[in-house]
Amino acid sequence: MDARHKAGHDVTEEPTMRYELYYWPEIQGRGEFVRLALEEAGASYVDVARSKGGTGAMFKLMESEREKHRPFAPPFLKSGRFLIAQTANILLFLGARHGLAPREEAGRQWVHQLQLTIADFVVEAHDTHHPIASGLYYEDQKKEAKRRTADFLKNRAPKYFGYFEEVLVRSGGKHLAGRRLTYADLSLFQIVAGMRYAFPKAMAKHEKKLPRAVALHDLVAKRPRIAAYLASERRIPFNEYGIFRHYKELDA
Amino acid sequence: MDARHKAGHDVTEEPTMRYELYYWPEIQGRGEFVRLALEEAGASYVDVARSKGGTGAMFKLMESEREKHRPFAPPFLKSGRFLIAQTANILLFLGARHGLAPREEAGRQWVHQLQLTIADFVVEAHDTHHPIASGLYYEDQKKEAKRRTADFLKNRAPKYFGYFEEVLVRSGGKHLAGRRLTYADLSLFQIVAGMRYAFPKAMAKHEKKLPRAVALHDLVAKRPRIAAYLASERRIPFNEYGIFRHYKELDA
Repeated sequence: MDARHKAGHDVTEEPTMRYELYYWPEIQGRGEFVRLALEEAGASYVDVARSKGGTGAMFKLMESEREKHRPFAPPFLKSGRFLIAQTANILLFLGARHGLAPREEAGRQWVHQLQLTIADFVVEAHDTHHPIASGLYYEDQKKEAKRRTADFLKNRAPKYFGYFEEVLVRSGGKHLAGRRLTYADLSLFQIVAGMRYAFPKAMAKHEKKLPRAVALHDLVAKRPRIAAYLASERRIPFNEYGIFRHYKELDA
Repeated sequence: MDARHKAGHDVTEEPTMRYELYYWPEIQGRGEFVRLALEEAGASYVDVARSKGGTGAMFKLMESEREKHRPFAPPFLKSGRFLIAQTANILLFLGARHGLAPREEAGRQWVHQLQLTIADFVVEAHDTHHPIASGLYYEDQKKEAKRRTADFLKNRAPKYFGYFEEVLVRSGGKHLAGRRLTYADLSLFQIVAGMRYAFPKAMAKHEKKLPRAVALHDLVAKRPRIAAYLASERRIPFNEYGIFRHYKELDA
């Protein structure tokens, strides 16, 4: 068939059930919370900006004139006719589809609530090294970063982690929502791992008060699909471009 | 019946269908997004910390040893057996119950996504006056606040508002999700109102590029229930304790 006969059709669209994840290719960032859920679910997905499409495919969708549900920022997930942005929103969707969240309303709400609190934590963890502007270099806000990080490590991180530890005490199981794993557990794993990378000294101290959160981190890391993922090249190493960055001078 | 015969029952629990909203009594803050939805829905609710219970009732729930789904922070909403925290999560719940969101999955996701982007904006608006620590006074981070606000007004606010304006261009109606009002429209009204209060000079300039967002703000303000609410004592005036604060020196 002549290509001209396809006018009006999107010839690049494949008839596949694979998810397409759109996120920055060089960092774990917010996309990592989605990657962990996809991996644990054993879902088939393409990490678009890391494959042949590159970031061009990501920008194309964000700037598309046709796309009615244009995302504000990555990550976003394409699933058939669905285009979903905002990490917690994507996880709400994946959780229901892949048994990574309770089915009944109260449980589903609760896990989403935990995820949104993790999202708040992620903003604060990011802003430790970028307290003035995300568009400026760290070097241009280093002094302010030291002040913000000191407060974060002294007050904010212990408040959040103390909360999740308490949730684990009351959950009636080893997971945040009880005996079954949810996407919020995968996300808690990620923030423990991130904090260990960014602030090894401070985190070593904090962890003494977080036996349950640490045990959950270890439990998640040992799940067969997660363990395989972490050992693979699909897991981008932590680095100084993402949310959790290690700057020696900030780790008091 | 003798009070002693009620041992084991919670005698303070009323058999009512009224919602209980728990939020700081002196500010609009994040609670305002929930108040606007409850008001537009014509729902019966008690703003607990502003009534006889005071903030004591709020802290009691947050620190309760029995409460399995203990919130990390206000606002939270009690609805029968549901206790829901995180503003966007509460709105997801109210939206479905009161026709303030589309019923079909893609529409519901889209409105939630918009709300989560508004939530991101709210964090950034707050951090203009508190870039170092929420636990410190503004006066203790004034210099940093000036730097952060300059970037916010130059780069971030236009980026967010430009996005919402674009969404309105494509929506096929006067509202963010088309012809029908959703809770995201109420929230957009609130951030326009907040920005006008906090940064009247900068916002006057921005608004020239936001005809649709401004028109939506006006449309929401004129809805009978919202108009009645805004004219009532239930609407707490903007002030310098909330998210949107007016500090002359920051409004470049």
